[in-house]
Amino acid sequence: MQLGMIGLGRMGANIVRRLMKAGHECVVYDRDPKPGAALAGEGAIAASDLADLVSKLKAPRAIWVMLPAGEITEATLKELAGLVLPGDTLIDGGNAFWKDDVRRGKELAAKGLHYLDVGTSGGVHGLDRGYCLMIGGAKEAFDRLEPIFKTLAPGKGGIEPTKHRDGRNPRSEEGYLHCGPVGAGHFVKMVHNGIEYGMMQAFAEGFDLLRNASAKEGLPPEYGFDFDVAEVSEVWRRGSVVTSWLLDLTAEALAADEDLSAYTGNVSDSGEGRWTVEAALDTATPAEVLTSALYTRFRSRKDHTFAEKILSAMRAGFGGHVEPKKP
Amino acid sequence: MQLGMIGLGRMGANIVRRLMKAGHECVVYDRDPKPGAALAGEGAIAASDLADLVSKLKAPRAIWVMLPAGEITEATLKELAGLVLPGDTLIDGGNAFWKDDVRRGKELAAKGLHYLDVGTSGGVHGLDRGYCLMIGGAKEAFDRLEPIFKTLAPGKGGIEPTKHRDGRNPRSEEGYLHCGPVGAGHFVKMVHNGIEYGMMQAFAEGFDLLRNASAKEGLPPEYGFDFDVAEVSEVWRRGSVVTSWLLDLTAEALAADEDLSAYTGNVSDSGEGRWTVEAALDTATPAEVLTSALYTRFRSRKDHTFAEKILSAMRAGFGGHVEPKKP
Amino acid sequence: MQLGMIGLGRMGANIVRRLMKAGHECVVYDRDPKPGAALAGEGAIAASDLADLVSKLKAPRAIWVMLPAGEITEATLKELAGLVLPGDTLIDGGNAFWKDDVRRGKELAAKGLHYLDVGTSGGVHGLDRGYCLMIGGAKEAFDRLEPIFKTLAPGKGGIEPTKHRDGRNPRSEEGYLHCGPVGAGHFVKMVHNGIEYGMMQAFAEGFDLLRNASAKEGLPPEYGFDFDVAEVSEVWRRGSVVTSWLLDLTAEALAADEDLSAYTGNVSDSGEGRWTVEAALDTATPAEVLTSALYTRFRSRKDHTFAEKILSAMRAGFGGHVEPKKP
Amino acid sequence: MQLGMIGLGRMGANIVRRLMKAGHECVVYDRDPKPGAALAGEGAIAASDLADLVSKLKAPRAIWVMLPAGEITEATLKELAGLVLPGDTLIDGGNAFWKDDVRRGKELAAKGLHYLDVGTSGGVHGLDRGYCLMIGGAKEAFDRLEPIFKTLAPGKGGIEPTKHRDGRNPRSEEGYLHCGPVGAGHFVKMVHNGIEYGMMQAFAEGFDLLRNASAKEGLPPEYGFDFDVAEVSEVWRRGSVVTSWLLDLTAEALAADEDLSAYTGNVSDSGEGRWTVEAALDTATPAEVLTSALYTRFRSRKDHTFAEKILSAMRAGFGGHVEPKKP
Repeated sequence: MQLGMIGLGRMGANIVRRLMKAGHECVVYDRDPKPGAALAGEGAIAASDLADLVSKLKAPRAIWVMLPAGEITEATLKELAGLVLPGDTLIDGGNAFWKDDVRRGKELAAKGLHYLDVGTSGGVHGLDRGYCLMIGGAKEAFDRLEPIFKTLAPGKGGIEPTKHRDGRNPRSEEGYLHCGPVGAGHFVKMVHNGIEYGMMQAFAEGFDLLRNASAKEGLPPEYGFDFDVAEVSEVWRRGSVVTSWLLDLTAEALAADEDLSAYTGNVSDSGEGRWTVEAALDTATPAEVLTSALYTRFRSRKDHTFAEKILSAMRAGFGGHVEPKKP
Repeated sequence: MQLGMIGLGRMGANIVRRLMKAGHECVVYDRDPKPGAALAGEGAIAASDLADLVSKLKAPRAIWVMLPAGEITEATLKELAGLVLPGDTLIDGGNAFWKDDVRRGKELAAKGLHYLDVGTSGGVHGLDRGYCLMIGGAKEAFDRLEPIFKTLAPGKGGIEPTKHRDGRNPRSEEGYLHCGPVGAGHFVKMVHNGIEYGMMQAFAEGFDLLRNASAKEGLPPEYGFDFDVAEVSEVWRRGSVVTSWLLDLTAEALAADEDLSAYTGNVSDSGEGRWTVEAALDTATPAEVLTSALYTRFRSRKDHTFAEKILSAMRAGFGGHVEPKKP
Repeated sequence: MQLGMIGLGRMGANIVRRLMKAGHECVVYDRDPKPGAALAGEGAIAASDLADLVSKLKAPRAIWVMLPAGEITEATLKELAGLVLPGDTLIDGGNAFWKDDVRRGKELAAKGLHYLDVGTSGGVHGLDRGYCLMIGGAKEAFDRLEPIFKTLAPGKGGIEPTKHRDGRNPRSEEGYLHCGPVGAGHFVKMVHNGIEYGMMQAFAEGFDLLRNASAKEGLPPEYGFDFDVAEVSEVWRRGSVVTSWLLDLTAEALAADEDLSAYTGNVSDSGEGRWTVEAALDTATPAEVLTSALYTRFRSRKDHTFAEKILSAMRAGFGGHVEPKKP
Repeated sequence: MQLGMIGLGRMGANIVRRLMKAGHECVVYDRDPKPGAALAGEGAIAASDLADLVSKLKAPRAIWVMLPAGEITEATLKELAGLVLPGDTLIDGGNAFWKDDVRRGKELAAKGLHYLDVGTSGGVHGLDRGYCLMIGGAKEAFDRLEPIFKTLAPGKGGIEPTKHRDGRNPRSEEGYLHCGPVGAGHFVKMVHNGIEYGMMQAFAEGFDLLRNASAKEGLPPEYGFDFDVAEVSEVWRRGSVVTSWLLDLTAEALAADEDLSAYTGNVSDSGEGRWTVEAALDTATPAEVLTSALYTRFRSRKDHTFAEKILSAMRAGFGGHVEPKKP
């Protein structure tokens, strides 16, 4: 079927490619004309602006917006809303804050437009592996666009089927899911990312511990290890309980350089981590691990916190303690 | 080659079966004569006591002890040490505390005995999938027993090779690794379990959040979800960043019953979780996530903590606050 | 000077009493006529409704709203804004969310009205001890109402002066502070409460540990204690580093009943704890302790979390583990 | 009465001074002869070595060891045990690990010696304020030395009595307590320090948040604060819920320099913090806050953790993310 795609960065362009490979027709637009021209060379129809893109699509239209930042997504969807017709569907495939989806969905519904929020996981590997799609919005709009989602999703692949699933929704096994009303897609994606933070931090602490336990001095006498963390990460890939894609990636990075010397350790966080904690606050869910994982990233980007200076000042105050030098 | 196995619970018996399938000869013993008799029926040589087991093995012997509790392992290894000869190798494949290994290794070395500590992951699925083996002890003893480890390990299987591993230790890719001197095997296994705790808790919090976000009341107005956590767990199995064996298991449990009503939520912890935190203390490693994951288990086994009563008492003291009823 | 007070619960009524004792004139109103009548008997002027209260105050008026919930505060301030005149000052002394203050301050400023947000600490003891006041809003409005704040604040009292304060703001030493523009008062109060949560949890965990270390079984052999937590809390009140009002309150509660058997341990949280975490997210501040303190309260109000069931289900999945019974 | 004091650092010397002021007789020794000579000038009897010290005391002797490190304390007590007579009492007033006390107490008891472990809080202010004493050991030895403890403790002072204490142990109100058998004193002191860590971290995070909320850019639009943290700390000293000695010390440090520019923020931790977490592990006590407070200190002493590099490497692996620069 036909899809408009706005935003032709790595994610947007690869989604278009995966769709075209399966025979879907894509009308594409990006502020930068280059990626559109490149995709035109691969079979896409390049549009010169939003109005042009809308005019090149047949009603009922489906237009997927895949832009990095919240503000430009908002502006683009607003402009699109003035160009399309009742019955058309706008899709945000970026990493929006789900409460913005809820608001936006209402605004668009008031104009007779459908809105789908699609949480998209898969990163740089999505073109080949397919994208895990978590979709929110009216069931009717989801149903109409299902061929698109089915194409983008990884499919069953070689993954062993889960037991006890007789009679359950077969779409989940293909890698796409209608999660509920508008906002549900990005909410599920947000929780996914929250879990991802927690898992990453679990591995990070474990490997940190193995390294620190390999120190040559300053440890209790039982220590005397010199762990090869690259080999440890590799051996865990087979038969252990922690096998996972994140472990695969870690093993790859450690195989290339077990000191990870190309990295400083300043770790970014994106909105999803913070929104997950906010949802934990909203719902009174104790989320120790997801939150700690986020806080370690905050801390990683600072030389020192004022908190630490306060601690040193207090220690000087009650005990006359002087700060140690770093080892 | 030949191996003695002491302790024929699920783990010990399945290790024997996997070895025999590959042509190794196993002499087996358990205090309970039944599992030994059963294994004898499958080709093992059953021994009537430890001395009998030792006498049925040719020097240099290798005897694997696979017992659940620390005390009985200790006692068994002590008794064995009096029966075997210099040059023999004793193996503890259970979940021992690595500092006990270090002490024990020294005691046995003083008698001319080898000692290997083997962290064994794979649980109930090991017979088929193979066991991930993390091994500590003298390189010489490891080398001699490598055929055993190679048989027990999962092997390369269908798992995609890790990039950048040219020239690295090929054993890790088979699923077994000599991690270092005595204690190193159980140390690596301990950290593995610590990571496992953290990953489990990350998933647990995420699914808890999805459930709590599906509440019918008491939430901010944007909420209005009714997530099917079984489907969410399934869709994440394809193409998402959190794909992992633990997710597979969660998907299976939720497919069987998305309310998990067979479970109360009293969660055990074993020694490894606590020892991991102890190692974090020894090595001054901030291990927020691994520790929080452990503490949530402590908390899960109590109706209330005294800590919570203290909080309520303070609140009554400064604000006259009365405790709420549970929802 | 003259002040209108709306909301005559414990806090509002005691503020009025403390003001009248110092010679200020108070016009008071509450939906329930009883507390107004009681205060009239102590010298206050009771108003029959908001309009009546406004009419009984001379311009420029100052009206303090001291209501428990956010919604009714919002409605009352809206109604008042329609009754008062440019140059008048409205005060919210409750526990509002500081972002609501910022919005509200702008709305009122557009009508020529002043708005002060006053974080008020002191609880049930404020009438005698005085209230610690953290004030946000225009400096001009703060200045005009300073006599009110000075009266309500505890004053220097017998508290030892802080060194190095020569030339610093003398108001802080009296117990009231103009913290900045609208929102600053409730922001500082919010952080105060966040710290309060953390301190409370620190004590709670410590006393919990002393109790658990007094268990008669299940502990390592070195344990053999039977701590009297009431005496421990008392001895710490003298010369220790943890001396604090919260310790005083704990000592009092434990002296009355060292088992705290009147308490279940369901611990409420109010908005400030959650807003503190939200501010930590906004500002990328690692706030491990303040957040953990909040999460333990969330957990305290549940029999079990779904998270815990997920953990048990995973453990059954990979290890065949059966849940333990509670001790 | 008479007391021997070994170790004349700040703590030991001030304890001697406080005792002599009250008329007790002190025989003192330190490896460095200077502090002993100084104290001799103030009325103490200086000994030239341990044997000399023992010979200058009348049986039954009481000898207080106040040395910084565990090893030298151990060696000193061992040597003393060979010099004193059955019925004498050895006291460790340092910060020993309580399990060492338990072992040591048994060893000394086997020789007919008494052993008291005395947790001592008060720091640099103890000479004037007195020391909060938490004492473990045989009741009989405690009783005999009570005059010493009573002198060292702060006494009731001007502190408001705790309600509901009729019939309770009057010693706690003086600031000293017999907490139980050998080890109990240091255990209670250890928990005290654990709580101290948690309280300190609560304040540290709160002030960090106030500073970060004063940033000029990068914050949501509602922010626009410029908090004077020195004034905030001062105002909280009066009438707030967080009043405490630690707040007093913070206010003093911030009054001297609200940027705390003399401090780097490398925060030490001493044994007590780690032992508290170990006790939490032993007793299955969830101690989130006490542990987090410790971990932030571990982190403060590092430029970056390997954990953080692992996170960056994973992010590069699945999303092609590049590390941000520090702000």
